Amino acid sequence: MIIVMAHNATEDDIKAVIKKVEDLGFRAHLSRGVERTIIGIIGDERQLAGASLEALPGVEEVIPILQPYKMASRAFRAERTIVQVSEDIAIGGERIHVMAGPCAVESREQLLEAAAQVKAAGATILRGGAFKPRTSPYSFQGLGVKGLEILAEAREKYGLKIVTEVMDVRSLPVVAEYADIIQVGARNMQNFDLLKELGKIDKPVLLKRGLSATIEEWLMAAEYILSGGNFKVILCERGIRTFETYTRNTLDLSAVPIVKHLSHLPVIVDPSHGVGRWQFIPAMCRAAIAAGADGLLVEVHPNPPEALCDGAQSLTPKTFAETMEELRRIAAAVGRKL
Amino acid sequence: MIIVMAHNATEDDIKAVIKKVEDLGFRAHLSRGVERTIIGIIGDERQLAGASLEALPGVEEVIPILQPYKMASRAFRAERTIVQVSEDIAIGGERIHVMAGPCAVESREQLLEAAAQVKAAGATILRGGAFKPRTSPYSFQGLGVKGLEILAEAREKYGLKIVTEVMDVRSLPVVAEYADIIQVGARNMQNFDLLKELGKIDKPVLLKRGLSATIEEWLMAAEYILSGGNFKVILCERGIRTFETYTRNTLDLSAVPIVKHLSHLPVIVDPSHGVGRWQFIPAMCRAAIAAGADGLLVEVHPNPPEALCDGAQSLTPKTFAETMEELRRIAAAVGRKL
Amino acid sequence: MIIVMAHNATEDDIKAVIKKVEDLGFRAHLSRGVERTIIGIIGDERQLAGASLEALPGVEEVIPILQPYKMASRAFRAERTIVQVSEDIAIGGERIHVMAGPCAVESREQLLEAAAQVKAAGATILRGGAFKPRTSPYSFQGLGVKGLEILAEAREKYGLKIVTEVMDVRSLPVVAEYADIIQVGARNMQNFDLLKELGKIDKPVLLKRGLSATIEEWLMAAEYILSGGNFKVILCERGIRTFETYTRNTLDLSAVPIVKHLSHLPVIVDPSHGVGRWQFIPAMCRAAIAAGADGLLVEVHPNPPEALCDGAQSLTPKTFAETMEELRRIAAAVGRKL
Amino acid sequence: MIIVMAHNATEDDIKAVIKKVEDLGFRAHLSRGVERTIIGIIGDERQLAGASLEALPGVEEVIPILQPYKMASRAFRAERTIVQVSEDIAIGGERIHVMAGPCAVESREQLLEAAAQVKAAGATILRGGAFKPRTSPYSFQGLGVKGLEILAEAREKYGLKIVTEVMDVRSLPVVAEYADIIQVGARNMQNFDLLKELGKIDKPVLLKRGLSATIEEWLMAAEYILSGGNFKVILCERGIRTFETYTRNTLDLSAVPIVKHLSHLPVIVDPSHGVGRWQFIPAMCRAAIAAGADGLLVEVHPNPPEALCDGAQSLTPKTFAETMEELRRIAAAVGRKL
Repeated sequence: MIIVMAHNATEDDIKAVIKKVEDLGFRAHLSRGVERTIIGIIGDERQLAGASLEALPGVEEVIPILQPYKMASRAFRAERTIVQVSEDIAIGGERIHVMAGPCAVESREQLLEAAAQVKAAGATILRGGAFKPRTSPYSFQGLGVKGLEILAEAREKYGLKIVTEVMDVRSLPVVAEYADIIQVGARNMQNFDLLKELGKIDKPVLLKRGLSATIEEWLMAAEYILSGGNFKVILCERGIRTFETYTRNTLDLSAVPIVKHLSHLPVIVDPSHGVGRWQFIPAMCRAAIAAGADGLLVEVHPNPPEALCDGAQSLTPKTFAETMEELRRIAAAVGRKL
Repeated sequence: MIIVMAHNATEDDIKAVIKKVEDLGFRAHLSRGVERTIIGIIGDERQLAGASLEALPGVEEVIPILQPYKMASRAFRAERTIVQVSEDIAIGGERIHVMAGPCAVESREQLLEAAAQVKAAGATILRGGAFKPRTSPYSFQGLGVKGLEILAEAREKYGLKIVTEVMDVRSLPVVAEYADIIQVGARNMQNFDLLKELGKIDKPVLLKRGLSATIEEWLMAAEYILSGGNFKVILCERGIRTFETYTRNTLDLSAVPIVKHLSHLPVIVDPSHGVGRWQFIPAMCRAAIAAGADGLLVEVHPNPPEALCDGAQSLTPKTFAETMEELRRIAAAVGRKL
Repeated sequence: MIIVMAHNATEDDIKAVIKKVEDLGFRAHLSRGVERTIIGIIGDERQLAGASLEALPGVEEVIPILQPYKMASRAFRAERTIVQVSEDIAIGGERIHVMAGPCAVESREQLLEAAAQVKAAGATILRGGAFKPRTSPYSFQGLGVKGLEILAEAREKYGLKIVTEVMDVRSLPVVAEYADIIQVGARNMQNFDLLKELGKIDKPVLLKRGLSATIEEWLMAAEYILSGGNFKVILCERGIRTFETYTRNTLDLSAVPIVKHLSHLPVIVDPSHGVGRWQFIPAMCRAAIAAGADGLLVEVHPNPPEALCDGAQSLTPKTFAETMEELRRIAAAVGRKL
Repeated sequence: MIIVMAHNATEDDIKAVIKKVEDLGFRAHLSRGVERTIIGIIGDERQLAGASLEALPGVEEVIPILQPYKMASRAFRAERTIVQVSEDIAIGGERIHVMAGPCAVESREQLLEAAAQVKAAGATILRGGAFKPRTSPYSFQGLGVKGLEILAEAREKYGLKIVTEVMDVRSLPVVAEYADIIQVGARNMQNFDLLKELGKIDKPVLLKRGLSATIEEWLMAAEYILSGGNFKVILCERGIRTFETYTRNTLDLSAVPIVKHLSHLPVIVDPSHGVGRWQFIPAMCRAAIAAGADGLLVEVHPNPPEALCDGAQSLTPKTFAETMEELRRIAAAVGRKL
């Protein structure tokens, strides 16, 4: 951590800062430049998170040097984390996994049909929301536990694994009972109480990036789970909020190589929410794999115009199957398998 | 709702859209322009929230006409809502209320000192977090129920009302027991399960705008509470996330007159989180009152450099008292009292 | 264009709007819904650009239906535009072209070395700035005409075509004399006087997306050039400004398929400015090709730490050559050549 | 400037960085922390702008310590700059000046009527565009020199000063001949060739903040003019681009106290473009004055629905006159005059 003193800071200001730093148990390193005096702090600055050094007289700026996350960093673990979902499915290895299915579980018929279709096209994991976070209280809110039961039936019948969202600490036990991967939605990325609970269980967690979360904040959210003891975290880029209005969000594919540079955790991409219009999803699936994503999360619906949510961004089973063909070629071109 | 057909949509596409609209129980109104055919939907489009008409062949765009919120709108209630916090404190009336105090309750001494100081300067409501949402798992997480007890003691001793944050549905009962106003933080603005619970209780709720929430989404979050039966909602602008890095957020003061135009709910401003640097808080307090805010939420700490959180954006008691003087003059200039 | 009347608009307000629309030479189409009255405008709404109908009493919102660009749209020209740069180089066809070279022409030696290196790796077009737009007046501002002469020498020697930036209407003639493709930088995307001049010449123009331009505004900037008579426009996505601070910009790869859906113009990608850190450029080059880009613009410097600008985002010749190998495989996987 | 070495940087990497720093004529100051080694650079880091130290092996991050602007900073000039527009009009002193008038000069009648109205209400400077930057090539582009002549006539007749926009280096001489203050629009904030020319003349320049410019970039644009020799620069906040769609831009009023903290230059506010809807302009005018603005730039049109541009954000003369009354009270409340 570097403390930059204002150009008109006094000697007393400087002494007071050094004293404060030392009182907190750190060593201070003074450096007088031509226009500014700076004070370096020697020690683990993460323990200073929240200390209010900026409020000291004469301090112009406090600049952190270290990343604020520890367990999520490459420095903590040099080899890549591979999240084992089941005996034969691992996220983060050579094989890329595609998680596909409808936005929401709407009925037994709809979900089983979707499951059959995505399985046939090559997906290994079935997505489908039982508890749905909806912007409007008047929108379909999901089937709840009934939806989880339907997901379990589809798993049984088609040999797919299940990823589904948890919205609330109260429903975590039941979601954890049914799901193979527990999804944390973008709006819950900083629901810290939920993250703490997820740190205590032994199930893979798919952690979506928040709507306006920096990569650093996203990794800090992961740190909550890791520091609780659960290392089975899969990150999921799903688009960030920008001024562009044609797309629902702006899919930030640069997050894929960056997360792999900063962290050992696997990262997948959700182009459906990232773009929000089905026409552009196949291109973004291809781009995600080319950028190095470890998997995809794609909305597929047997009949998009009838969907109770997100029909506009759902692929038809036919388009999904064609896209999977293209993805196999891209995966091969980057030395991986699908 | 207006459905814009693509320039190359066929007659069959148009017919299919009209049929779908009618099947959903609405009337369709066809209008053929020079370059585009558009189909108007007659009926309460809010009931179509989530319908996936964009997924029909030949549809280029679906444009909503009505605001998606109902109970939060001026059309629903023409007169302004005044939220009665206690017999003598009402938010949204002629009198502007200032809620002030530290970011977090750190100790009994700290809070009682802060309470005495903000009371002396003219604040009527004491702020202070007992449950703290922190970006880092390694930061101070708040005193929990102990913090609530300290807040209650300060209320008793100084005749202030209490506003404090709820983070989780599980702690809502205890927070509701102690607080006069229950605060929902920016990160929880779309914690829909929490909003639903807040709709069931009879306590004022201070609903902060999400970090990257549009005004419409913010009013939709309020709609969750209102539609649950609780009309005591106070909105709080606290800055939105932009590309600017000098400030913590960008305080959107235009939200004040806009919310008052679109909704009947009162709106206050939190310049502390909005700007994030104490030097600029007094100016933004003045601007908020001049823009028409019904109140302020301001961080004040007896000794900012010692604060366990947000010291850089906390006013000293002295600066706060001076600011209150200025605010009295601004309030008078816009025909209100402080 | 749709005019939405406020819920409390009077009959006189409605009549006045209809009269105004008819006075402007358009037909009005009235539709009374349950909660709102809307008035459709029949005619080419682009001729209403700038009309101030929102200012009429009782008008709540004016919603455009048509895209504001005409010549840049797919409706105007169904087949894809292929920009012929020279007899053997065309942008927008089956073959993907890579434009590479240093940020700035720094010296004859530097540029010739770079030219030799990018040529050897498979680039067909050499980039290099002679006139440099720099945020700081104290930074290197480019070699000017001398830089153009060096570029011409490199073209001669290595059989590459030249793309270089024009910053100002006054230097357009000399830039046009030397360049094979004239680049308009992001900061000049809405330099309308410059765009008008570019509409009058017969040279390919590479139009970068503005730092915070929507796709629609970008296509409107292209419309300025097209409507002036020059159809040789190549669009270039180069990242947009967001709240993320780890990257220089956020590269919006969804712009690639979207531009191809909305327009007939070719589109290339500049991942160097889009990300700003060389480590992640190869991954984003791969992703851009997989998303369907017609080309790339990549910064390559013989010795990045010595670069006078943008060294942090410049590839070494070795990394560039390796990246080109990967891109050949991706291009083949999407049915194209490099 | 601080160079942060990567956690796995070698001793040779460190030595190479120190050598490079010294070769550039600076002193290096080494500091070994627990987890990272950092190297401080002693000397005027502004001379390193553009140096590519990030590209050296083992470098993780290069963090500037000094603001990149010099002449625009408070450190360069401690007292506030007051820009003298004429003998009796100065921007930045005790008196707040309101610049008002239509978006564009549309006709002699329209402008003279507007001039009479804004003069009567208390404006001292008349705004009106003769050269108009328009998003669409099909929109009204301004009357050009004819518009300047009309502005001059209004100045003569009503004793107002004139502020009008320059779009292009070629028309700068004629604009400078007529204008009392030369306006640089948001889209031209980084038109560096134009800024350089403005540095050479002796006329006040009103420099609008770019659509997505940080405060630092805005001050760097001012630095171009100052470093050219022209110190008569007035900064103008006019809203920045965010994800919010209800307003045209998000007016960043915190920029007012921040600019006054970082720079000696005066700063005014344009709420018309900042919000884009006339209903909210009076509130934002009040807020701007309360925040400490030295002036306002407000669009007023004799008949907004007939305006050829920006009618939706233009005040009627009546609303403008009422707003001026309110502003006098706010100005008095902050110890200033209007």
